[in-house]
Amino acid sequence: MTTLEKFYQGDIRALSRIISFIENRTSGYRDLLGRLYEKAGRALRIGLTGPPGGGKSTLVNGLIHEYLKISQKVGVIAVDPTSPFTGGALLGDRVRMNEFPAGGEVYFRSMATRGASGGLASATGNVAVAMDAFGFDVILIETVGVGQVELDIIDTCDVVVVVIVPESGDAVQTMKAGLMEIADIFVVNKADRPGAEKLAINLKQTIQTKKKKDGDWNIPIIQTVAINKKNVDLLFDKINEYIAFIKDNSIFFAHRRQQIRKKILNILSNRFRIEFISGLEGKVDFDQIIDDILKGKTNPYKVSEEMYQQFKKIS
Amino acid sequence: MTTLEKFYQGDIRALSRIISFIENRTSGYRDLLGRLYEKAGRALRIGLTGPPGGGKSTLVNGLIHEYLKISQKVGVIAVDPTSPFTGGALLGDRVRMNEFPAGGEVYFRSMATRGASGGLASATGNVAVAMDAFGFDVILIETVGVGQVELDIIDTCDVVVVVIVPESGDAVQTMKAGLMEIADIFVVNKADRPGAEKLAINLKQTIQTKKKKDGDWNIPIIQTVAINKKNVDLLFDKINEYIAFIKDNSIFFAHRRQQIRKKILNILSNRFRIEFISGLEGKVDFDQIIDDILKGKTNPYKVSEEMYQQFKKIS
Repeated sequence: MTTLEKFYQGDIRALSRIISFIENRTSGYRDLLGRLYEKAGRALRIGLTGPPGGGKSTLVNGLIHEYLKISQKVGVIAVDPTSPFTGGALLGDRVRMNEFPAGGEVYFRSMATRGASGGLASATGNVAVAMDAFGFDVILIETVGVGQVELDIIDTCDVVVVVIVPESGDAVQTMKAGLMEIADIFVVNKADRPGAEKLAINLKQTIQTKKKKDGDWNIPIIQTVAINKKNVDLLFDKINEYIAFIKDNSIFFAHRRQQIRKKILNILSNRFRIEFISGLEGKVDFDQIIDDILKGKTNPYKVSEEMYQQFKKIS
Repeated sequence: MTTLEKFYQGDIRALSRIISFIENRTSGYRDLLGRLYEKAGRALRIGLTGPPGGGKSTLVNGLIHEYLKISQKVGVIAVDPTSPFTGGALLGDRVRMNEFPAGGEVYFRSMATRGASGGLASATGNVAVAMDAFGFDVILIETVGVGQVELDIIDTCDVVVVVIVPESGDAVQTMKAGLMEIADIFVVNKADRPGAEKLAINLKQTIQTKKKKDGDWNIPIIQTVAINKKNVDLLFDKINEYIAFIKDNSIFFAHRRQQIRKKILNILSNRFRIEFISGLEGKVDFDQIIDDILKGKTNPYKVSEEMYQQFKKIS
């Protein structure tokens, strides 16, 4: 039996192998991804993001238990763009996997930044497609921070939960606008610590002052203590509520359509980029051009524009 | 007087304004950057990277003092891809600037991830070009972690210093190969803590077992206590030694030539990408295509390939 056949039969080792194949961009991975894509689309994608040390992993573990209760299969992707330097995602995984029953109901995968040559966000999206095609009902994507990479990752999710803690008060203050933009649900975790209530009230005020139309989603703020599982069930309910809301309001598929469109444009421009650059080799005297730039006679912008105009003429 | 004229006269506010102009990619920034490029190329670029909490900022401050002693003008770019969420780079700057005499001998700039729409690495490189053209002798670029973004940033430097602390022992263990690849100099900072000596010995062994040719640079490991300025002068000396080494061995300009080449290819492929995508609009029935993908009849990879072949035929 081929690995792909095993994959479709639910063999978890085949899933791991196929994910590695995709992650390493082994020759032929595009064809494989294309085939998986046609089987995917059924799984919900839930993104959790926020500063390090906010207890996201514990929260994710809590959510997993909620999904297991209703017999859902859960895939988890942990992305830490500062990892593996900090060791965060990688070291944590093995421990976390032991918490859940074996047998394919829960599957963890962490994304190593260094491995994902060019495009951690697209690599994460590709892994999600594989998990989706494999048959997971829910894919939880956990990222640290809200830099550009995380925003791109979050962009591939149906729901975004932003997790903060009382200690992140100051940072939240400076980031409010950005947070409002991406959060569908706020979680103030470690809510038994001082300052949690104040942070929640502060956030609520900001949400309320934000102009919005009737019928817009009202971003909830949930105070959790993930380590004691407190209010994790509430978060679970809110996620379900949000999904029902976006499905009712045609937002769900509009967003997915937008994602597919983006994906096509990305594939195309990468394709072209490679073709274009290989077409330049041999035709352009880079050494001479670079000499002139080093001497300050010209600059990369001027040179590129000249090349581009020339390319347009001959093609 | 125009801002650019003031810039060339050494007006630090004009520098700030021009950097913001470039960072925000305000219309016309490419022409400006091109002109700055022709004045740049004189400054040394020194990159410092490593896990958060390693004391990089303190080390950078120590290096600034060393450069000031020999009357060098120093520009600093602090890049934190997890910022501004963690608040790291942004909040730290104001404090740090107060440490040094005013008057343009030292200039700090932090890169906010959210502001740099698309390409933190290229934005950082652009800011370095502006500082270089302004007349700084040395540009210190400080980044957190060694994810892809940081690697791209580091790639624009002449020297790379990797800063670790005894506590990062485990992470270093899993990252050895990657670290060796990028480090020209290792610093074990906070070397008064337990485990520093062991970490240094361990690193040294790894360096020694790595095959290399005669005359290759021997990566030094410097144990510092940046907070007490201990051995920061030694690091300073080693940086100078390394620069002399790469200049003597024609590595310095070979590397810079490689960077310019990369820059040209990046500008060109972005230029083309934009042109190509705008050419697609209106000609392609994306709605129909996306419907088919959602139904699992086709997939983004297949569709992109078809579009690409069609494009090649008509162009």
